[in-house]
Amino acid sequence: MPNLHQPRRHGLTAIGFAVAFVFAASAAFAQQAKPQAKPDIGHFMLPNGLEVVVIPDRRAPVVTHMVWYKVGAADETPGKSGLAHFLEHLLFKGTAKNPAGRFSKEVAAVGGQENAFTSQDYTGYFQRVAREHLKAMMEFEADRMTNLVLTDEQVLPELKVVLEEHNQRVANNPRARLSEQIDAALYLNHPYGRPVIGWRQEIEKLNRAEALAFYKRFYTPNNAVLVIAGDVSTEEIRALAEETYGKVPKVADIAPRLRPQEPLPAAARRLTLADPRVAQPSMHRAYLVPSSSSAKPGESEALEVLAFILGHGNTSRLYRALVEERGLAVGAGGWYSGSALDATQFGVYGSPKPGVELPQLEAGIDAVIDDLVANGVTADEVERATSRLIAESVYAKDNQATMARWYGAALTSGGSVERVQSWPERIRQVKPETVNAVAKTYLDKRRSVTGYLVKEAAPTGDKRS
Amino acid sequence: MPNLHQPRRHGLTAIGFAVAFVFAASAAFAQQAKPQAKPDIGHFMLPNGLEVVVIPDRRAPVVTHMVWYKVGAADETPGKSGLAHFLEHLLFKGTAKNPAGRFSKEVAAVGGQENAFTSQDYTGYFQRVAREHLKAMMEFEADRMTNLVLTDEQVLPELKVVLEEHNQRVANNPRARLSEQIDAALYLNHPYGRPVIGWRQEIEKLNRAEALAFYKRFYTPNNAVLVIAGDVSTEEIRALAEETYGKVPKVADIAPRLRPQEPLPAAARRLTLADPRVAQPSMHRAYLVPSSSSAKPGESEALEVLAFILGHGNTSRLYRALVEERGLAVGAGGWYSGSALDATQFGVYGSPKPGVELPQLEAGIDAVIDDLVANGVTADEVERATSRLIAESVYAKDNQATMARWYGAALTSGGSVERVQSWPERIRQVKPETVNAVAKTYLDKRRSVTGYLVKEAAPTGDKRS
Repeated sequence: MPNLHQPRRHGLTAIGFAVAFVFAASAAFAQQAKPQAKPDIGHFMLPNGLEVVVIPDRRAPVVTHMVWYKVGAADETPGKSGLAHFLEHLLFKGTAKNPAGRFSKEVAAVGGQENAFTSQDYTGYFQRVAREHLKAMMEFEADRMTNLVLTDEQVLPELKVVLEEHNQRVANNPRARLSEQIDAALYLNHPYGRPVIGWRQEIEKLNRAEALAFYKRFYTPNNAVLVIAGDVSTEEIRALAEETYGKVPKVADIAPRLRPQEPLPAAARRLTLADPRVAQPSMHRAYLVPSSSSAKPGESEALEVLAFILGHGNTSRLYRALVEERGLAVGAGGWYSGSALDATQFGVYGSPKPGVELPQLEAGIDAVIDDLVANGVTADEVERATSRLIAESVYAKDNQATMARWYGAALTSGGSVERVQSWPERIRQVKPETVNAVAKTYLDKRRSVTGYLVKEAAPTGDKRS
Repeated sequence: MPNLHQPRRHGLTAIGFAVAFVFAASAAFAQQAKPQAKPDIGHFMLPNGLEVVVIPDRRAPVVTHMVWYKVGAADETPGKSGLAHFLEHLLFKGTAKNPAGRFSKEVAAVGGQENAFTSQDYTGYFQRVAREHLKAMMEFEADRMTNLVLTDEQVLPELKVVLEEHNQRVANNPRARLSEQIDAALYLNHPYGRPVIGWRQEIEKLNRAEALAFYKRFYTPNNAVLVIAGDVSTEEIRALAEETYGKVPKVADIAPRLRPQEPLPAAARRLTLADPRVAQPSMHRAYLVPSSSSAKPGESEALEVLAFILGHGNTSRLYRALVEERGLAVGAGGWYSGSALDATQFGVYGSPKPGVELPQLEAGIDAVIDDLVANGVTADEVERATSRLIAESVYAKDNQATMARWYGAALTSGGSVERVQSWPERIRQVKPETVNAVAKTYLDKRRSVTGYLVKEAAPTGDKRS
């Protein structure tokens, strides 16, 4: 459940009318937490290659309708960063059959909600509507899967919207700027080092032709996953899907997603970002670690448990030591961002109390980590962590949209329906030895970037740092 | 002349029989230093697009024959790092007409020397022979420009050679490992962040098909520069070139070299590399600065002068302050690596005296830089630096091969014959104000990575750093 306690991965996707937002980073909202019991999930594939997941939820006559594409920022051509996210915006520009605005107007007219999002690994679109409007949503979404029409008159203003989004979300947000710098310093070779929203100087040069070429390369039913959660049956959806998405021809073959991988990390890195808008200094460290998809069996689950013990909430080791016992910090924690196709991040962070310097805080965090690595975790801690992780996933299951996101994110980041369903059991089997082993292997500073976020001071002393 | 006093850019290219080496980094040996007087340079283009530069040097009956391709590591596809350099090795594997080994044997038989080299921006091949053998060299080199034949039997063993070269030059060389890490941390987006020799896990997967595809894409006369220096006339070379290279058809169109560029640097970065083989700890800092090709008029020349004043030899500010006056260092200096198509590096470095810690040394280096930025350089210093730079370029002109390299590197890194020839005049015009301005703009820690190279200690205290 790192999405519930992951301070640096937020990047919510609430959109207004036909405006789509980008995730802050690769892992985005859908994490490793998975439902406990096997719900009666439907799972099938249409002849055109579209994968379909149906999550019945009969409590209310509403449905969540999501289409996920297996393409994200990490699939962009170097030099064209931001293209996946820009295209996400452009998908609201209409088709020959449904001109710009009609789809969103229809969603609004029936009292629905809509949203769209881009991460390093996927791009997704969703609507939440009363069940009788589902078919209309499916028709609209199937239409824009391959029939997008773009004119320069639509593309150029949307580029301004995206640049303004960059201003708001990154350029004027010190925490986001720091994340961008940490990601770039952590990944020496893998495209996860590039921001999902793009480097500004590259966003500025994106254009219609590039967006369309990207669309034609990646938007095809055989590269998509349809997830429908709500007051529906699998058989009902099978019929509706065949009638709507089933008519979309496969327009492209999809090559395996082989991204440049990281060399073995060799040197601990540090960076300092000074920004006049910083109100509260903080320290953030990210370690390069395997994701659910790239890990050896059991390692990703052990990293979930480790993150919980070390950093989740105010019973975590970091919080207790730094905030409660030693009084060094106003906040401290840790997280693991397991849902990613390739190597991902494990993080620790803290904000010092007034009067405490960042190096002092960092030494405190290091002491907690050193102790954990040297002496290991207890069986009790592991028991508590696994129970809590599983319980939280059960509570979260209560939310229809959350369920849909779990499956969508998993299936577009190297996971599977079976892996989603076996998650509680895999967490339950985590042993203290495995947690200790991953702590020893991965909480190695050579794998890490430590970032300080500080208030930019008036120029005294060294003016250049 | 940063090639003469640039501690971290060495990467010599001496080769044995048919074995080629890689440059350590982008700038390689051919720097900004250029001949003072305009020699009687010949410069023309063949109808197939091959650019030819002739540098007459009648002192001895020998010639230096070089072919430079406008392709280097920065032109590789991500995930295929090392391909440009691997192909350089494979170019010794022969053609239908001249099977593997024949060319090198011929060079040896006539008492010649040969070499090959790869940088971020170019790949080059050269022979130095008595003048009567020039035509044979041109025939061999023209033949392998487009007629390379590769079999798996040749490619696979050569991959082992390259991996062994990686072992020797990088994996077992702490200084090279540090450079690799600094480059990777300095460039957040530009391919100069990838090592020329490649990331090991990517070198391991290179193969014949990829090498041939790269060859066919980039090895074509319209992407090459022929440089001949020695006991020859332009008219003589024109005839020989037409007879040999002139018969090579253009086999590919060449797209503009547009690499992903760097975002505005925002956060000062630091890293520490611990290696058990380190005998002498040291500190190295690289700043991201414009190259001769990417700078505004006058900036690159001012950076040359700044590097000279700050860091060249034992009259430089860094050496005098740290080694002589304060006794903190056994060595200290600075350099500017101006010859590159895109943004390049300005460096400072030092090695502490026994008993001095690296942070103390770094503070000493910072004090010298801060003083220079705050108070500027003197007219005297600029006068001395420009005179010395120009004088050194005149001395260096004495070397035929050096002259050939100046032109070859310039013409494959965005420069021109005119820019090479105007170099002394441009250096002569550097004013203290311009040096002060570039110091203020570019010696900004946000643009920099500071690397510490330390001896890996036995595991005590924090075992993970």
